Amino acid sequence: MSESQTFSITFKISGGSSAEIDSAPGEIHFQAPKGIPLLEAAKQANVAIDAPCSGNGSCGKCLVRILSGRAESEKSRHISPESYEEGWRLACQTKVLGDLTVLVPGSAGAFKSRMKIADFGDSRERGIFDALKAELDNLGYTGNSGLELAVLHLKTPEIDDPMADRERLLHGLAEKFGLDESGVNISLFALRKLPAVLREGDFSCTCVIRREGEKASPEISILDIYTPNSGPKNTAGEPILPALAIDIGTTTVAMVLTDLLSGELLAMGSEGNGQIRYGADVISRIIESTRSGGLERLRRAVLDDCMLPLIRELASKAGIETSQIYRVALAANTTMTHLFAGVSPEFLRLEPYVPAFFHSGKFRAVDLGLPAHPNAELLLAPSVGSYVGGDISAGVFASMLFMKEKCSLFIDLGTNGELVFGNGEFLMTCACSAGPAFEGGDISCGMRATDGAIEACRIDGSTMTPSLTIIGGGKAAGVCGSGLIDLVGELFAAGIINPKGKFIRQSDRVCCDEWGMSSFVIVHGKDTESGNDLLLTEGDIDNFIRAKGAIFSAIRTMIAMLDLNMDAIDEVYIAGGIGSGINVERAVRIGMLPSIPLERYHYIGNTSLSGAWAMVQSQKAAEKVDEIARGMTYLELSAHPSYMDEFIAACFLPHTNGDLFP
Amino acid sequence: MSESQTFSITFKISGGSSAEIDSAPGEIHFQAPKGIPLLEAAKQANVAIDAPCSGNGSCGKCLVRILSGRAESEKSRHISPESYEEGWRLACQTKVLGDLTVLVPGSAGAFKSRMKIADFGDSRERGIFDALKAELDNLGYTGNSGLELAVLHLKTPEIDDPMADRERLLHGLAEKFGLDESGVNISLFALRKLPAVLREGDFSCTCVIRREGEKASPEISILDIYTPNSGPKNTAGEPILPALAIDIGTTTVAMVLTDLLSGELLAMGSEGNGQIRYGADVISRIIESTRSGGLERLRRAVLDDCMLPLIRELASKAGIETSQIYRVALAANTTMTHLFAGVSPEFLRLEPYVPAFFHSGKFRAVDLGLPAHPNAELLLAPSVGSYVGGDISAGVFASMLFMKEKCSLFIDLGTNGELVFGNGEFLMTCACSAGPAFEGGDISCGMRATDGAIEACRIDGSTMTPSLTIIGGGKAAGVCGSGLIDLVGELFAAGIINPKGKFIRQSDRVCCDEWGMSSFVIVHGKDTESGNDLLLTEGDIDNFIRAKGAIFSAIRTMIAMLDLNMDAIDEVYIAGGIGSGINVERAVRIGMLPSIPLERYHYIGNTSLSGAWAMVQSQKAAEKVDEIARGMTYLELSAHPSYMDEFIAACFLPHTNGDLFP
Repeated sequence: MSESQTFSITFKISGGSSAEIDSAPGEIHFQAPKGIPLLEAAKQANVAIDAPCSGNGSCGKCLVRILSGRAESEKSRHISPESYEEGWRLACQTKVLGDLTVLVPGSAGAFKSRMKIADFGDSRERGIFDALKAELDNLGYTGNSGLELAVLHLKTPEIDDPMADRERLLHGLAEKFGLDESGVNISLFALRKLPAVLREGDFSCTCVIRREGEKASPEISILDIYTPNSGPKNTAGEPILPALAIDIGTTTVAMVLTDLLSGELLAMGSEGNGQIRYGADVISRIIESTRSGGLERLRRAVLDDCMLPLIRELASKAGIETSQIYRVALAANTTMTHLFAGVSPEFLRLEPYVPAFFHSGKFRAVDLGLPAHPNAELLLAPSVGSYVGGDISAGVFASMLFMKEKCSLFIDLGTNGELVFGNGEFLMTCACSAGPAFEGGDISCGMRATDGAIEACRIDGSTMTPSLTIIGGGKAAGVCGSGLIDLVGELFAAGIINPKGKFIRQSDRVCCDEWGMSSFVIVHGKDTESGNDLLLTEGDIDNFIRAKGAIFSAIRTMIAMLDLNMDAIDEVYIAGGIGSGINVERAVRIGMLPSIPLERYHYIGNTSLSGAWAMVQSQKAAEKVDEIARGMTYLELSAHPSYMDEFIAACFLPHTNGDLFP
Repeated sequence: MSESQTFSITFKISGGSSAEIDSAPGEIHFQAPKGIPLLEAAKQANVAIDAPCSGNGSCGKCLVRILSGRAESEKSRHISPESYEEGWRLACQTKVLGDLTVLVPGSAGAFKSRMKIADFGDSRERGIFDALKAELDNLGYTGNSGLELAVLHLKTPEIDDPMADRERLLHGLAEKFGLDESGVNISLFALRKLPAVLREGDFSCTCVIRREGEKASPEISILDIYTPNSGPKNTAGEPILPALAIDIGTTTVAMVLTDLLSGELLAMGSEGNGQIRYGADVISRIIESTRSGGLERLRRAVLDDCMLPLIRELASKAGIETSQIYRVALAANTTMTHLFAGVSPEFLRLEPYVPAFFHSGKFRAVDLGLPAHPNAELLLAPSVGSYVGGDISAGVFASMLFMKEKCSLFIDLGTNGELVFGNGEFLMTCACSAGPAFEGGDISCGMRATDGAIEACRIDGSTMTPSLTIIGGGKAAGVCGSGLIDLVGELFAAGIINPKGKFIRQSDRVCCDEWGMSSFVIVHGKDTESGNDLLLTEGDIDNFIRAKGAIFSAIRTMIAMLDLNMDAIDEVYIAGGIGSGINVERAVRIGMLPSIPLERYHYIGNTSLSGAWAMVQSQKAAEKVDEIARGMTYLELSAHPSYMDEFIAACFLPHTNGDLFP
């Protein structure tokens, strides 16, 4: 047998709903070199298999079933003997030793099901957005995108007035706005439509114009041109100027299509970030990006698998062409911003942790592969540091922290946790890697807050029986972030686990597998959707405690750096989709959030998306976001001497220092 | 048989050398509807068949051979009975009545063979260009393209100086140029290279920068970035900044790749305009553009078949990537400019003859499909009227007419003839449709001035025997423009044809075919390359007389409008590739050019290309070209009452008014 022997692998995809799976349903064939891990082969074959722990065997999410062929695989606590017998394996722990046929069970669906929908589709998020919009309207942070409509009635050309169409239009527009003609320009896109539009409309037309340049020498660009009354309209029949705001999260991408004239939302939606198959956290993605072709693979994974179908879907919902998207703003963390822009994030994770860019300048949306008007500007929210990105600059804007008198703490809870502390006078920021625990990853029973998720629970201290609140009211399928906080808090309060998260009481609810891993049976198999016991393992609790510890220790390190204590925090603004379901009281009880009066906590929704919305609506808002990013002091926690000690101290329930949680 | 019956046509291509033919040699298959003209089927199948008369059966150039199958075809004077027997047909006169196999004899080669090479490859053209370059150097019209190289040595980032790469670079550049940082930007292209380049070069780098904006608020864009000494170089090893100048003629496209730092020419070449299969003149192209998909078909015909391969070839010759072309200027007539830009030229030919645009503003070269740096600007030379385009604005600049004291006439001789008369004080312009006669089209024995072409001749008045000068000295293959002028002049001088161009002497040199068309046997078959008699028909003479009449009557109409006579023309500057071989004395003798002292005539080469070269080299030159275009008075000859009378009067040898040619 030669070293370079390859085997033929057939991936049979069952279910799943990502664009990629839809477009290639059924089977994917791939030639894999001998000995390669099956998960790696799947990545190379572009088969989406969920692997939030990046393939170290700990999360148990990459289950596949070997239907035929030879593969070598370690046994795992994630696989019962019966399942093992049926051919179920962890793809990351399985080596290819021959031609294989592999069942991938609704893989795309699997990672999708963990996604937290963080757009403005639900009524609570929408209410928060509407309140923000009203405030921004009042403050003059809307309605100045630079784009507007202009209606023109031009003279019809004649044999003794044979001015060309373009010059005729520019002359008319310059006259209307009292400008010099040299300050008016027209896009190639509009120029190509011009001769027909002018003649169809009898030399009357509506122009989509963009004002640019300094006030001293203003310029106007004509982006598009329509015959009178033929441009895009809202459901009330009023003309609109569509624009797009995008939030790329490590786990989820959310978007709103909005009208620049009224500020109204035309369509909204979200989708799993297709990069997740390369790892759940930014570090795994950065490492993948440094592999041959990796940067482009990651760029396309978020763009093609997720953003393009979503943009087309929103445009279709709003009844517009994508070429009628005239302005785009995008907010994302530093790694996501780099990957989306096709710029290597390699040096983000290597000392001295230097991004390729904080600010990007203005790009054209189409240059980054987005379907939009060819001259539509793309505004990228600026990053502050390697792990505090545009989602935070935009988020701090939307949180209005920069206008507060009181000392306020902004927390964005996602795969990473980012913190900003300050007010109208100063802003300090840092980031910690919470991992995907709050988003349902890294937790064997984790899922997003949708039907079947346990979102809250109480545990009877004597019987150890949990009372569960399940979204949708049906059978339990898993536990979402807020449910986890409750569950761990209740297990601790009932003395079932100790401050280190280890089981200390015996019961039929606590079981131990052959690998010595203890688990709590949240729901017995007869009452679950799958028929299997729903378990919370010590490993899950461990992951969770590290996530909450990362957040608390980051808060404490930053506050301590300012020679303050937790009482100095006058207000806390919790952002990020997963913040929505959190019961703050219980989050305090387990030592995740500081023990300050509960009324100081406020949930403010997906501020990355609402901040991007403000940027696309308003040049003034976009400038303010820039200013915020430039003005923030970035604290690199990994370089901070006391952070690691703080972290270790916080990996207890609630904390090694009981005084902090009286 | 149903109406929608289709037949399978196999085009067998023999020889030929365009990129299209090269890439698909051998056979092209096509399903054609019953009854369609074979020429039309070939167009739809993208098979290049030369048809300068646009398919009315008059030029005889679209010869193909039916190898098998059923087709219906009229007999033609262009096909001898023997050839007809062999299956030769005019594609335009042949209807498809069944499955066919058709031999297309070196079709691409055929139309290519008619092209006048109008680049700076030959020594005469190069000499003219070098003289112009020296003059422009003196006048400060070179070396200010706005692009330059900047070498930077940046501080290496450290843990307490974690500024991002982009901000580090911008800061360094702003400092170097004494600018505010907000005035410096970087292209996405350079940003994507930035992290690797900085680290490979130890934070030293060379930037390709472009200065923009007003002097009051200057801006700098970083287009590209290299590690020290790794950018493109000339053969002497000196750094270069490549840029491209393009002339799109109706018949030929010519280009030079030039260095913006030194002005030197890096590579040059020319290629037939692939649109020629849709007709030899601009009117045929405009009509084709109004058909379904026609505009895009024409745009791609010049771009894909001709410009892209040529640009890649020049880049390869110069040893650069096409992404290292940092600036592009293009000059073309109004129709070619519209078609290249993908803007409908439909209204150019409909009263009141209004173009879609005179000036275009600045586009990105890549937006128009050119391979270049993604942020390279494309400067389109501005048009003056429907039939006086950017080739003339650029040409007038290169002719220096705008600086002359004396009244000067600029003539661009191509498929159209364009005239400009004036000096430093005023400029008036008009165009006439000379047709492709001078470029070898519309003339059955026409060809370009290359090996085998008769470029000069004398005819012995008594024996009627011609003495020929043949380029290359071999056997005669055809007659080029200058040869035609001689031939018609000599036939007239010898009394063989009358002033109307009809044969009036009998001889074995004059023959008449079965359709009653008389011809002059220039060379007997035994002495020609093909073995067939080389004939000049009355039809050819007719086409030629109309071409020369169009030019002379245009000159006369314009001069008369100014209340001047021909003596007012102090200097004549003849531009355009086909001007190069013209014997002015003989052109005057047949009444093509005005009878003024011969020393007033000057040949100045392909000024469309040299003007485009000046535009790409110099912002000052580009601005002057704009100013020239805005300042020219455009005379629409077709709307001028006396032009038709002048034209009819000029369709005589030399002219109906003998006083004009004493």
